[in-house]
Order: sequence, then C-alpha cells, then structure tokens
Amino acid sequence: QWIGESDGYLQLIDQTLLPGELRLIKCHNVETVWEAIKTLRVRGAPAIGIAAAYGVVLSQHGKTAAHSTSLAEAATSAAKYLATSRPTAVNLFWALDRMDHVINASRAGGSELGQALLAEARAIHEEDRAMCHAIGRHGAELIPDGATLMTHCNAGGLATAEYGTALSVMFTCQDQGKSIQVYADETRPLWQGARLTAWELQQRNIPTTIICDSMSAHVMQTRKIDAVIVGADRITSRGDAANKIGTYGLAVSAKFHGVPFYVAAPSSTFDMTLSDGAEIPIEQRDHQEVIAPYGQKLAPSGIDVYNPAFDVTPAELITALITERGVVQPVTAEAIAKHFA
Amino acid sequence: QWIGESDGYLQLIDQTLLPGELRLIKCHNVETVWEAIKTLRVRGAPAIGIAAAYGVVLSQHGKTAAHSTSLAEAATSAAKYLATSRPTAVNLFWALDRMDHVINASRAGGSELGQALLAEARAIHEEDRAMCHAIGRHGAELIPDGATLMTHCNAGGLATAEYGTALSVMFTCQDQGKSIQVYADETRPLWQGARLTAWELQQRNIPTTIICDSMSAHVMQTRKIDAVIVGADRITSRGDAANKIGTYGLAVSAKFHGVPFYVAAPSSTFDMTLSDGAEIPIEQRDHQEVIAPYGQKLAPSGIDVYNPAFDVTPAELITALITERGVVQPVTAEAIAKHFA
Repeated sequence: QWIGESDGYLQLIDQTLLPGELRLIKCHNVETVWEAIKTLRVRGAPAIGIAAAYGVVLSQHGKTAAHSTSLAEAATSAAKYLATSRPTAVNLFWALDRMDHVINASRAGGSELGQALLAEARAIHEEDRAMCHAIGRHGAELIPDGATLMTHCNAGGLATAEYGTALSVMFTCQDQGKSIQVYADETRPLWQGARLTAWELQQRNIPTTIICDSMSAHVMQTRKIDAVIVGADRITSRGDAANKIGTYGLAVSAKFHGVPFYVAAPSSTFDMTLSDGAEIPIEQRDHQEVIAPYGQKLAPSGIDVYNPAFDVTPAELITALITERGVVQPVTAEAIAKHFA
Repeated sequence: QWIGESDGYLQLIDQTLLPGELRLIKCHNVETVWEAIKTLRVRGAPAIGIAAAYGVVLSQHGKTAAHSTSLAEAATSAAKYLATSRPTAVNLFWALDRMDHVINASRAGGSELGQALLAEARAIHEEDRAMCHAIGRHGAELIPDGATLMTHCNAGGLATAEYGTALSVMFTCQDQGKSIQVYADETRPLWQGARLTAWELQQRNIPTTIICDSMSAHVMQTRKIDAVIVGADRITSRGDAANKIGTYGLAVSAKFHGVPFYVAAPSSTFDMTLSDGAEIPIEQRDHQEVIAPYGQKLAPSGIDVYNPAFDVTPAELITALITERGVVQPVTAEAIAKHFA
C-alpha cells in the first residue's frame, strides 16, 4: 500500500511473521524494498511486481526536478537494482519494464518524473486488483458447488493487490454462494500454505485442512478431490508454468488420479519470449531454510542440501489456464496465442 | 540393545533427539518401552518389533518363579499393552505373537519363563540383523555402479537391528565398492530423513543431499535418478505396501518418470491375512506435529489438520520387493505366495 503522494512511502505487511504477528514495514528507500522482496517479506509474483514499481518511485526521494537527468538515472538504476532481487517471477520484470517506459518518456521531455512514476505504479496496482477479480470470476465457472479443492503455496490476497489468483477463484465461489472446502499444502520450506493460505481462507470462513506436502497424493487416493488450483510465477508461450517448488509433483499426482489441475495467473505472468519451461531460471535459496527452520537444527552438520524455490509444470499436465481474459483449455501454444490475440 | 541377563534392561538411542544429541534411554519396565515406541524414540517397523519383544521380558521383573501363573499373566498383559502403542507396522504384532507362543509353551509346563522370553527376544533381534544383511545383498544386485538413489524416511540401522532395509541396500553397495549417491527426502512432519537417514549415510561417507519432500518430483524431472528404495511397515499378500506418509506420492512420481521403485523389508513385514492395502489401519497422529514443530507456531489457531502417519502404495507402482529371501519381481499375489512357499 502506497501512503501519501510521490514523496510518500510503501507500506507492506511483513509476511514472514504471519500468522503469529501482523507487522507493517515502511519502505522509504529502494534498498528496503529490495530487501523485502529478497527475504519474502513481500512475495507472490504479482505482489513483487507492484512492490518493485513503487520501489522505483522511491528512487526520486530527496532529489529535485532541477536535475532531470540524474532523476531519470536514479530511476533507471533503481529498476536495474530491483530486478536483481528474485529471478523467477516474470511479473517483476514486466512491472519494471513498464516503469522503464515511463522513465524513457520523461527523458524525451515528458511530465514530471516522480508523479509519472507514481501514476504508473498505481496503475499496475489497480490493474492487478481488477485482474484478480476477473480471474476469480472465470475460474469459479469451473468449480462445482460442494467442491473439495487443493492448493499449494499462497496465491491469495497476500500475493497480489487483492483477492489473489488461485484463492480468488475460491473466494469468488464463496461470494457466489457455493460451498467449498480446501486442503492447503503446508509448502515447505517456508510454510506459505500453512502460514498464509490457511490464514486467508480461515478469515473468510472457508473450511480448510492443512496437510504436509507429502500427504497430497494420499489425500487424492483416499478422498475425492475435485480440482487443484495454483498460481504461477512465469508461464511460457506453450503453457509450461513455473510455480513454487512442489507444484510439479502435485500436478503429476493430479494427472495420475484424474484430478483437474488449474493454473490461475494474470497476463503479466506470461513470458512469450520463452517456449520451453526448462529455459525459466530457477532461483536457488539458502540451505538453512531447509535444515534449520526458525533456527532448529534438523540435519547433521556438513550435509549437502538442494533448495530450488520453484519447479516447472509442463503444459501437458495443466488442465486449463485461468487469466483475467478467460480460460485457456486445452493448454497449447496455439490456444495461448489466440487467447492474447 | 539388551543389557544383562533376564533381570537386565533395554537400552535405546532416543531417536527424537538425533542428530543433535546422542542420548541413551534405559527401559526397566513395560511402560517405558510403550512410551518409547509411541513417541518414536524407537521407530522403524523391525526395531519396534524387537523393542516390544524385550518389553515383554521386562514384565517379569520383580516377580519370582513361585508364582508361575501370575508370571505368564504379566507377560500376556504386557504383550497386549505393547500392541496398543502403534497400529500400522505389522512387525510389532508379529514379534508379540512370537512372545505369546513362548508364554503358552511355558504355561504348558515348559522352561523358566523369564529366560525363555529373553531367548526369544534375542532370537528376533539376531534374526533381524541377519535378514537386514541378506536384504542388502539381494538389493545391491539391482543397483548399478555410479547410481543416484532416492529414499524417504529412515529405513536404516536405526530402524532395525543393524544395517537397515532400504539403507542396507546402499550400505552393501558401498561395501561392494560401488559408488553411489543419495537424495534423502526430509520426511515431514518428523524429519526422519533429514535427521536420521542423512546422519547414517554421512557416517558412512555416502554422498547425500537432503531435499524437501515436495522437491522429489522436480529432482526426477531434472536429474537422472536410477532408483527409489524405501522400507515398509506392512505389506499385504498382493504386495500393497504401507510405509511412511509421502511414500505413495514418491511412487506415483517414480512411475511417471520411469524410475524403478523398490521396497525392501524382511518377511516379518508381510501380513498375509490382508490382500487389499486399503484394509491396513493407518495411524493418525497429533496435529501439533504438523503445525507446531519444536513449539514453533506455523498456522493460525483453530485450523484443521490431517496427519496420517502412513500411506499405502499399491503393488502396481512397486517395481520389486526385496526380502531376505531374494527379489520379488513383478509384484503379484502369485509371486509373493511362491516367494514364501
């Protein structure tokens, strides 16, 4: 949330402390925003795009319009710096690219840069809010009354401007009077499912059961699951989708059990420059996240750890993509091209 | 480990504290053994069978041979009580059944009960040691030099008398001079993979990488895995195998990726009274294991949790069973019946 005008600041919920503590962070400079993205205080592909856009606005602080070249340079270097925070979600680069266009327009002798940057960041923010609601409406059409759903990680209001992507489908079902219940994967290593998704669903009184990630196949085997719905951090032109680590295994299991597998994401998540999901850069994170959560030592010293933050689900395992424009089904390069034509 | 003669005691490593602390527990009575099994201080299907057998020996303490009826009753009631500790692993009931036979033989006017019980418990213990080594030899024939393996939970020396079942295959490969490396699933919610399997493999200098359970599908997708090897807590007459929760999802993923999936277990793990794995009772455990590990609150208050301790992998997903008698492949009721004929 942006507080004030172009000399204002960005206020974020520190998501690493949820649900135990609801603490707000005030970001008055670019570095604080970078740190918040890097450490997942703000997370979720759309939300980090929005936060980064506001981060570029902060680059103008303490500078005067008398130095228009240095203003533009500060904004450009802020955008470059923020782009180094996390590599996988394409929404980050998409938002920063939009900010770059504003910077370039200003260089060409346009409007006052600070205000133009804030206006663009607010537009990105507002558009995301509208996209989330549209995703919810399109997705809800796929979900029957009485459905039992499963999700992974957090693709809710905390990951977006509002309502979320995967969770927006659930919230919209509820708004429409449908009865649903949800199994939320805890989502190791950072527990976004247990901490954030369960919290958001509980706040809306949607019956929710937390399971360990390793239990999802057993739940599909022994109980009826009507659909899996997840978000995405980057989707290629053929429909391969990068999302939180564990999503791919869930998709394999859904395929095996004949459970529809839906990926919900705004158009800003599509990276049409890539076709094969294997080309998506996968962020590698600190080993301590896996073997020393909250400082608790869980493994012998000196052991090796592999901690990729994302995996890629190939289009063949995705029943449908849900965007603000509608539903892409089946998921093929042709259908995606037509969807955005 | 049993210390002393029939008036001795059972000494166990408290596995809940590993690898941070190596603490021994001395069990001088039946209740302490029951508690150790229930809380997973001793765990692993073969190991809880052995511990329970020694637990029956402890029922004789402080009693004299002058009261032979009460001695037998104490042993019988100890066996019944120990059977209530954990419901899924059949080795527990198998070991207690052997102890019951000794009690009945003694009632019929046999040898001194305390010494007979200790002799039987020691036989169970020693037979398991031999079975583990035989499993290792048979399993190692399936594993090529240079293999990259994956395992779940802990089916090692800590879970058995010595060497383990799944890990015995790995240790035997190493003894034979084969070079192997292992991905160990951390195994939520109690981290037996990260805490115990990684520790056992590291002690033998086998290159080991810990991953979260949700990463195993991604690892199979992006790196070459030659085989998955796991243990089992109960195997039916058609080859359906109950094992630590998460095993089934791993088997589904192995099937999808064409990776051989091996289950290694002694013959005491087979329950020939059951055919369909759905009949195996699945232990449900405390919700706090999932949402408050080591007292760290990970979820909003009042949320529902599902925490099954085991799942069942159907025979169709198991490439081969490895027992002390050899290899069962393909896994069918006929092949199993022939294997044990």
